[in-house]
Amino acid sequence: MVRAASPILGDFLAAERDAVLDGLAGWVRIPSIGVQPVHLHDVALSAEWCAERMAAAGLEHVEILSTAGHPAVYGDWLHADAACTALVYGHHDVQPVDPLDEWTSPPFEPTVRRGRLFGRGASDDKGQVLCHLEAIRGLLGRHGPGALPLNVKVLVEGEEETGSPHFEALLRAERHRLACDVVVVSDSSMWAADVPSVSTGMRGLVAFDVGVRTAGRDLHSGVYGGAVPNAAHWIARIVAALHDAGGRVTLPGFYDSVRPLSPADRAAMAALPLDEAAWAEAASVACLEGEAGHPLLERVWARPTCDVTGLHSGYGGAGVKTIIPGSARAKITFRLVPDQSPAAVAAAFEAWAPAQVPAGVAVDIHREAVIGPALTPTDHPAVAALCRAIAAVWGRPPLFTRSGGSGPEEALGRVLEAPVLHLGIGLTADRIHAPDEGVDLAQLGRGVLAAGELWLELAALS
Amino acid sequence: MVRAASPILGDFLAAERDAVLDGLAGWVRIPSIGVQPVHLHDVALSAEWCAERMAAAGLEHVEILSTAGHPAVYGDWLHADAACTALVYGHHDVQPVDPLDEWTSPPFEPTVRRGRLFGRGASDDKGQVLCHLEAIRGLLGRHGPGALPLNVKVLVEGEEETGSPHFEALLRAERHRLACDVVVVSDSSMWAADVPSVSTGMRGLVAFDVGVRTAGRDLHSGVYGGAVPNAAHWIARIVAALHDAGGRVTLPGFYDSVRPLSPADRAAMAALPLDEAAWAEAASVACLEGEAGHPLLERVWARPTCDVTGLHSGYGGAGVKTIIPGSARAKITFRLVPDQSPAAVAAAFEAWAPAQVPAGVAVDIHREAVIGPALTPTDHPAVAALCRAIAAVWGRPPLFTRSGGSGPEEALGRVLEAPVLHLGIGLTADRIHAPDEGVDLAQLGRGVLAAGELWLELAALS
Repeated sequence: MVRAASPILGDFLAAERDAVLDGLAGWVRIPSIGVQPVHLHDVALSAEWCAERMAAAGLEHVEILSTAGHPAVYGDWLHADAACTALVYGHHDVQPVDPLDEWTSPPFEPTVRRGRLFGRGASDDKGQVLCHLEAIRGLLGRHGPGALPLNVKVLVEGEEETGSPHFEALLRAERHRLACDVVVVSDSSMWAADVPSVSTGMRGLVAFDVGVRTAGRDLHSGVYGGAVPNAAHWIARIVAALHDAGGRVTLPGFYDSVRPLSPADRAAMAALPLDEAAWAEAASVACLEGEAGHPLLERVWARPTCDVTGLHSGYGGAGVKTIIPGSARAKITFRLVPDQSPAAVAAAFEAWAPAQVPAGVAVDIHREAVIGPALTPTDHPAVAALCRAIAAVWGRPPLFTRSGGSGPEEALGRVLEAPVLHLGIGLTADRIHAPDEGVDLAQLGRGVLAAGELWLELAALS
Repeated sequence: MVRAASPILGDFLAAERDAVLDGLAGWVRIPSIGVQPVHLHDVALSAEWCAERMAAAGLEHVEILSTAGHPAVYGDWLHADAACTALVYGHHDVQPVDPLDEWTSPPFEPTVRRGRLFGRGASDDKGQVLCHLEAIRGLLGRHGPGALPLNVKVLVEGEEETGSPHFEALLRAERHRLACDVVVVSDSSMWAADVPSVSTGMRGLVAFDVGVRTAGRDLHSGVYGGAVPNAAHWIARIVAALHDAGGRVTLPGFYDSVRPLSPADRAAMAALPLDEAAWAEAASVACLEGEAGHPLLERVWARPTCDVTGLHSGYGGAGVKTIIPGSARAKITFRLVPDQSPAAVAAAFEAWAPAQVPAGVAVDIHREAVIGPALTPTDHPAVAALCRAIAAVWGRPPLFTRSGGSGPEEALGRVLEAPVLHLGIGLTADRIHAPDEGVDLAQLGRGVLAAGELWLELAALS
């Protein structure tokens, strides 16, 4: 039984640095963009790569789990007998890469610059999954069978960036194999490399693709301009009507079920060393906005929001094309917080949007993702164990944050009936979902150490 | 000297039908999309094709006229001595073809179905230019030198669909060579094949490409949603603010210089057999809209309007991409009527748009086209001549219409100091600027006859 993980894994990292980096680069090189059908085969290749890496790390029962969409990958090591069982969760699909011309180096040609490895998926989430696989490889490889203090199951899904449409069904189908005492999710960020933090919640998400059709075809703007509806105008009016002047979402009943923050929640947020000007600069924005009356961190973590992620109608090429667009599309997402119901918000939007246009203008709405919000109680013993593990590696105890993003964490906790811990090593500078995504190599190394420490801490609880 | 053009040209068309069709198909096959730089060479090829066709028709001094953009083509026949001189105007550039998947047959593979030749430019404007070239070929070929009753100059430009940015400079540089008593424009539509009509005016146009930037890059909508500006939201708010609830353009001062219609103008419009329901059905729309308080034809011909022709921001592919777009673009056009000043409207918009967003959101505006409105006095003797020519071919006198579109007609009339006649044979069913553009072959034949009749009528005036 290992007494302290960090010295062993520290030695392992020192010896294996190039192999760890080569591994990450090899995985990042596979363009596993799950939302784009043209990359279907690449996501399958990514799953195979992950399965091979699991087996090489010493995991057993490695298997690619088919779903109605992209495959997940499973492996476990179950030789700790009576000790507790942790299920590690991550994903191997990645975000699209456009705008491609804003990447300094191509997204699927991993490149190391200034202590970072750049490439799509380097931080979100291939790098974070590899923290665990490398920790397992390091411990099992150096100490052989018996080196892990607890049972570990690893589940790496392939549809996280698509909104995990088949993940809950997979969890239900495999719930006996996946049974665990605690879920460890590594798909989040820390406050800063020198201000370690632990996320305790995520927002939910409902996402729609909304189409507006005003005519059977595009019409000449000279011939028809002044008498026919314009799809670009009507989609813009729908988008403009989503918020009021105070930045609040106008959907009827949208805020009715929002749980107010507790004094402890507010105190935890206030403890974070936020510099709003620096935050805005890191976000590359020249102004901040949002719902009036709520501080910045509350707005991005604990208030529901609405953002249009895409808006397209008519001509977008060079020069003038004198048309009245006959159709338009918007991708509209809502981020949700406890205790909002994704189904209720979805139904409210599906009733509201068509009511924004006159008869004769057609609106069609397609639900693309429905994810619930998730919260981990900060007084759970497993959270304390996670905090000790992070303190051991980063040298100071973590602060509590939340994530404004959305994922399958709510389903993991609910279906597996286990608390969800977030051991995330991402940083704001990782630019996830954007051009020049990268991962900090020092954080990556700390993530390997922290995985080992966390297993020790969790084993000690049981 | 020819006494009646129609019998001669009727025989010519009967004998040469296949050659006329082959000619049109050959020209349509050249994808001379002037607004798309990738088709630069195709526009040049189209000009060469036109020059060869002019020479084959019997025109002299045929020359490709370079401009700072795409080339125009000139040819003339000046052997009518003291008779009047007509300048025929048309254009050889064509609109873009997207959405390509809505074409029944490919846009540059001309196809005849149900008495129509389908292909981009078949009606707008290659077919209409060919009416004149075939009439010249028919008369000169059958009767030799001396067969035309007046001097004819033909000018076919290559930048009409781009807003004719270099056309006025060309007119000024070549104004001695282009001097004429009357301009004959063939780039417009008739009310219906059995309700011939003559357009007496066109709207002006100012067109802008408007960019909004809210962040240096796209941002993760989970991480940042609720605190940063969204470029898709702000472009939508600008677009939504362009009109009030009554369908009026909100730009300050926009209507100040609009000349009200005269009682005669209103009577001419009321004489047209408009079936609003049929008009809407032909336009493929299920409802009509526009400025309250003005009848449909007045709205599309004699009222100024604003239409967004393109709107693009963020992700438009399959599935979900959880970003906050950092940039957005809209193409925004205003149609203008006498006596609005394009320069004044442009300046008003350039002041208004940036005022719609908060500090920290950047708006950049690029003028893409500036064209004045044009009106031909309906009591001019040349208009009466045109009406007689049309009556001779269609069997009934034409009604007066206007065109809601925009073109270089205003510059032609102003720089050459000549009245502008519209001999247009297009029909609503031609679907110009849209998928499945085509030209009615019966109208095309009548256009050839009408060109010959018009020259006789104009010669008789002098």
